[in-house]
Amino acid sequence: MDMTDVAYSTRADAQIRDLLQEWAKAVRAQDLDRIMAHYAPDVVACDAIGPLQFKGRDAYAKHWQTCFGLCPAPMAFDLRDLTVAAGDDVAFAHALVTCGPSGPENEDKTGAVRLTVCYRKIGGRWLVVHEHFSVPFDVETGQALCHLKP
Amino acid sequence: MDMTDVAYSTRADAQIRDLLQEWAKAVRAQDLDRIMAHYAPDVVACDAIGPLQFKGRDAYAKHWQTCFGLCPAPMAFDLRDLTVAAGDDVAFAHALVTCGPSGPENEDKTGAVRLTVCYRKIGGRWLVVHEHFSVPFDVETGQALCHLKP
Repeated sequence: MDMTDVAYSTRADAQIRDLLQEWAKAVRAQDLDRIMAHYAPDVVACDAIGPLQFKGRDAYAKHWQTCFGLCPAPMAFDLRDLTVAAGDDVAFAHALVTCGPSGPENEDKTGAVRLTVCYRKIGGRWLVVHEHFSVPFDVETGQALCHLKP
Repeated sequence: MDMTDVAYSTRADAQIRDLLQEWAKAVRAQDLDRIMAHYAPDVVACDAIGPLQFKGRDAYAKHWQTCFGLCPAPMAFDLRDLTVAAGDDVAFAHALVTCGPSGPENEDKTGAVRLTVCYRKIGGRWLVVHEHFSVPFDVETGQALCHLKP
């Protein structure tokens, strides 16, 4: 890797960070069009709640709407411990997302969700081709651990 | 992207697929050293069972041992719907893993686990820097859905 590559990689990292913050802002605003603009048409997405996978942007958009029904705006959706690795046309990021109803009175209702986001550069634009949200479960009880603190 | 890049990308994709199949074989054999050889020292890993994250190869190795205690060998660990994207030094893959005790008599005890694996090329070798296993949960009951079929 020469210095041009390093500069490029740093620039791509910054682009991915900006995209993720813009996307998180759109999620907090529950602005579906702004959220969905980040995804490739054939995105394969896994959410913390079932089913196993959503295939394609339309199926995933419906699921985002379902989620907004479960957690009305304004909601907390903050990325913590964000790590990004970006190459020339492949990138990924992972973070813990503090997610739930917003406001200090709801702090015990929020919890950390693990997030991995995978990008490809398609037609000159970084688009999410795979996304994976989850919470772990307790192996003794089988219950999802939805209120863990990061 | 010129034809050299395409050829390179195809070769990197094939390398990642080979590494994943070798890793899955090591998991089925519960060979901890062969499994752990795939990870970077500072890997950040999320498993389907708690806690939220494992930071570093040593912490994650201990967790693999705990898991082998929960599901003695021989075990099923088969990658399905594997999708790979590999650039020059950043790559990711996602799949559904059929996981659980092996053998046709145990089919109702296996289930699909969502898997995302993220690589960086470090010192000329592809190493896993982030891994994310999970199952979704039922939003009504809060129970993890461990026996979904892919």
